[in-house]
Amino acid sequence: MNPTPTQYRILIDCRDEKGLVFKVSNIFFNYDLNMLSNNEFVDRENNRFFMRSEVIGVIDGEKLYSDLIAVLPDNAVVNVIEPQKKRIVLMVTKETHALGDLLIRYIDGELDAEILAVVSNYDLLEPLVRKFDIPFVTVSHEGLSRSDHEQRVLEALEALGPIDYVVLAKYMRILTPEFVSRYEHRIINIHHSFLPAFIGANPYKQAYERGVKIIGATAHFVNNNLDEGPIIAQEIIPVDHAYSWKDMQRSGRDVEKIVLSRALKLALEDRIFVYANKTVIF
Amino acid sequence: MNPTPTQYRILIDCRDEKGLVFKVSNIFFNYDLNMLSNNEFVDRENNRFFMRSEVIGVIDGEKLYSDLIAVLPDNAVVNVIEPQKKRIVLMVTKETHALGDLLIRYIDGELDAEILAVVSNYDLLEPLVRKFDIPFVTVSHEGLSRSDHEQRVLEALEALGPIDYVVLAKYMRILTPEFVSRYEHRIINIHHSFLPAFIGANPYKQAYERGVKIIGATAHFVNNNLDEGPIIAQEIIPVDHAYSWKDMQRSGRDVEKIVLSRALKLALEDRIFVYANKTVIF
Amino acid sequence: MNPTPTQYRILIDCRDEKGLVFKVSNIFFNYDLNMLSNNEFVDRENNRFFMRSEVIGVIDGEKLYSDLIAVLPDNAVVNVIEPQKKRIVLMVTKETHALGDLLIRYIDGELDAEILAVVSNYDLLEPLVRKFDIPFVTVSHEGLSRSDHEQRVLEALEALGPIDYVVLAKYMRILTPEFVSRYEHRIINIHHSFLPAFIGANPYKQAYERGVKIIGATAHFVNNNLDEGPIIAQEIIPVDHAYSWKDMQRSGRDVEKIVLSRALKLALEDRIFVYANKTVIF
Amino acid sequence: MNPTPTQYRILIDCRDEKGLVFKVSNIFFNYDLNMLSNNEFVDRENNRFFMRSEVIGVIDGEKLYSDLIAVLPDNAVVNVIEPQKKRIVLMVTKETHALGDLLIRYIDGELDAEILAVVSNYDLLEPLVRKFDIPFVTVSHEGLSRSDHEQRVLEALEALGPIDYVVLAKYMRILTPEFVSRYEHRIINIHHSFLPAFIGANPYKQAYERGVKIIGATAHFVNNNLDEGPIIAQEIIPVDHAYSWKDMQRSGRDVEKIVLSRALKLALEDRIFVYANKTVIF
Repeated sequence: MNPTPTQYRILIDCRDEKGLVFKVSNIFFNYDLNMLSNNEFVDRENNRFFMRSEVIGVIDGEKLYSDLIAVLPDNAVVNVIEPQKKRIVLMVTKETHALGDLLIRYIDGELDAEILAVVSNYDLLEPLVRKFDIPFVTVSHEGLSRSDHEQRVLEALEALGPIDYVVLAKYMRILTPEFVSRYEHRIINIHHSFLPAFIGANPYKQAYERGVKIIGATAHFVNNNLDEGPIIAQEIIPVDHAYSWKDMQRSGRDVEKIVLSRALKLALEDRIFVYANKTVIF
Repeated sequence: MNPTPTQYRILIDCRDEKGLVFKVSNIFFNYDLNMLSNNEFVDRENNRFFMRSEVIGVIDGEKLYSDLIAVLPDNAVVNVIEPQKKRIVLMVTKETHALGDLLIRYIDGELDAEILAVVSNYDLLEPLVRKFDIPFVTVSHEGLSRSDHEQRVLEALEALGPIDYVVLAKYMRILTPEFVSRYEHRIINIHHSFLPAFIGANPYKQAYERGVKIIGATAHFVNNNLDEGPIIAQEIIPVDHAYSWKDMQRSGRDVEKIVLSRALKLALEDRIFVYANKTVIF
Repeated sequence: MNPTPTQYRILIDCRDEKGLVFKVSNIFFNYDLNMLSNNEFVDRENNRFFMRSEVIGVIDGEKLYSDLIAVLPDNAVVNVIEPQKKRIVLMVTKETHALGDLLIRYIDGELDAEILAVVSNYDLLEPLVRKFDIPFVTVSHEGLSRSDHEQRVLEALEALGPIDYVVLAKYMRILTPEFVSRYEHRIINIHHSFLPAFIGANPYKQAYERGVKIIGATAHFVNNNLDEGPIIAQEIIPVDHAYSWKDMQRSGRDVEKIVLSRALKLALEDRIFVYANKTVIF
Repeated sequence: MNPTPTQYRILIDCRDEKGLVFKVSNIFFNYDLNMLSNNEFVDRENNRFFMRSEVIGVIDGEKLYSDLIAVLPDNAVVNVIEPQKKRIVLMVTKETHALGDLLIRYIDGELDAEILAVVSNYDLLEPLVRKFDIPFVTVSHEGLSRSDHEQRVLEALEALGPIDYVVLAKYMRILTPEFVSRYEHRIINIHHSFLPAFIGANPYKQAYERGVKIIGATAHFVNNNLDEGPIIAQEIIPVDHAYSWKDMQRSGRDVEKIVLSRALKLALEDRIFVYANKTVIF
């Protein structure tokens, strides 16, 4: 046990049953922990309990973990997390706005993360990234099959050591199930539409053709079905008949970058549970 | 010619070419009309010109019409409208909120319209409508084929005399192409989702299952493809994981009624052009 | 003790200290209560703990109350509420929209309340209210001093029996501290601006003069300082230079009525705590 | 006259009278100009006419100007603008987000402007600005009276040559009337509240103390009264009781930077008229 107080984020995801809050808070009380924040949610349809607490006290995280597991239902998923900078990788193709926004937040100290590298299939954004003294890795897809290219991307990622989150900041290539399964619920993508509207390519053009009066952006975890992963955050802006699809694209950039950074922040703060292809966010 | 000044709304929809604003404003100037408001838009992709002016002056509307047609490109669509209460019919099924909102606006003098009747396939909402001294016509669909039922609805509508707009204030039955063609671009529907997301039945349940973080409502003109007509207005509200689909439905009602009434108001003020399955709104 | 399960809303507002969640959930657990929902918040600046739980079980509410008081810090405020229709009175002057919206929600069963009466200083809205079979009480202010008029309003309210909430649905007279103190944190007002902008009379005109690009509405509890009570809900809509102040007023009505009903719903569901002239809302 | 077509933005601001659109469009027609877009607005309260047209054709801008002046009412303000990169200066103090956002847009080619320099009273942001190869000028206020400091800032600005817009991207010092009059309607500021709420220092703290449920940001031209200049753009985000004022500040940054860049874009595209301390924006 550590004699100086440590802060922990405790995430619990399990079958619901009576007394869970009591059992968990009993443990916190016995350890004389201070509860900084506490959120619970019960998904009645799925009979599922979610809890996230921030506590501080003199305690060993592993002991806390095993004590919690002991009182919770079978198959409970418990995470006892000592907050520290997450290790993240950004993936981009050619667009500046989402990447640039993350870089500015990064140097501003707003992201509780270390950007290990920016990986791209083009070298176009390398000069920007270099300004911020962050490694830039180009893995060109030219002349390669999708799986060969992805294999090289995977190798590039693995060379960076452990990765908490892969952030697709307008990475315009589709990932295979193999890639996705490597980083389950750890790849965050920004899709430039209000999902599930306008799945697939060129959503602004689709939106323009459909004559919508609002456009949006969706940050989601990537799963094996394109644009169908668990949604983390969405935001919209109004448009009208005077917007060409290029105008929509231009205006949409502001929403894209804000939504992506908001989703990333939630992930970095361990606020997201994924269940039944949906997210519970505290 | 009328010696007292008359107000007109003039709507022009034609192929774009040089000098259209000049030619139209020249006519207004020659007639010594006062221009109260003026809006133009050119859809460059379709090379299409749209203009809406509100003018006031001593002039015969038919003469103005023929003068405008004379200077505009072939096949120009021109409307010279003397503002007066539009004749509208509301169609409903069982839900109170959208209907009730329109009724309150009606007695508040907010709708520049006469509600000829409320038509429904149930009699559930009759007591509410009767409070407002508006005729209620029940056309039950029980035991009838879709086409037989619709035939009776059409007869009920025709018995009401000329109709400017049919407002589907949560009318939960699908209309056939025959019905729609009778009132082209004059049937306004409210769909309880942010179209084109969640087309079809039970959009709130679909939204819940998909785990979206924003829900919406869409007012549109009805065409022959369900939920695919030209969009007039859209609005959204944020939701989160704690919303059951019933909660979404409840919250969504506020958006539905506001959006429907906003779209109706635009129609009553002759502010909507329909072109290429989209709307231009001034 | 009641042999059939009862549902309770339990609200706790007290000084923060270690173990509160444990102590409360311990009591729930010992009574074998089912926790339907649970929210906590600690205001660190004021060292204040707020908790709202919905529980169901076979238990006596008074016993539960005294058990909770026994384990909580001194001066804890505890409410054990058996949900039932709240008794409310609406007060209006001349405007239809906010009143009408509440009436439609009322007959739609959306408000968990009984409207005892609508009280007004004019009889203008009596015909509308009568349609809904709700008593309408006119207390004219003509020829009366403010305090005499208010005295009569108070008498009219007292004649209605116990009142949970007084809802000012565009009641355009200022209430005295005497009146307010009678119904502390139980008078809900809708102010037609985004407070604290445009305090006082004619906020739309003020907003127009200032040239704002967004207008709003604020629902708040009334306290002794005009427009300075604890804010419950706010909402906005965009405007532009083409809006006259009358246009702002017209558009603003939709926001006013939605915000007022949202605030009322929160109050009826016992979701609002008031502390330090602010609200904590679960 | 230039034999190759030139594009012009034409801005007209004058007393309203009959036939203005006709007279202007007549000139465009006679010069065989193509009208790319056209907007008009009449402020009826002030009897003021505003028009902005984008035209293209073979014409001399000065001739066009004098022809327009000849047909318009006395004292008409006419601008015939050949679009080109505006020359702008950014002023900052210590915050990264608004500056960083503009820098990223700048290298992305989104701003139709040349950033001549970033001027600051601290050197904190110099390393960031240097990354983008933009001159950084520190004019410390240490040990200087307000007027002496401002004099030095003015000298620094004048050394940069002609300036179209001065952008206060979180420049936290108050400007004197002398400074403001030098750049009338050409200094754009971002205020971190929804004006006119929370004028003055520390608006997030004020917002927190007041317990608002929405916070915002306002971009405006600077005039001689602090925070009272003509508003260009406003935007908001919802907050709740769980936000400390630091949280509001953090969330508010996203709104600040988006609103500032939106206002700057409108200015760079010559879309803003200022009249009666308000803006007309096309």
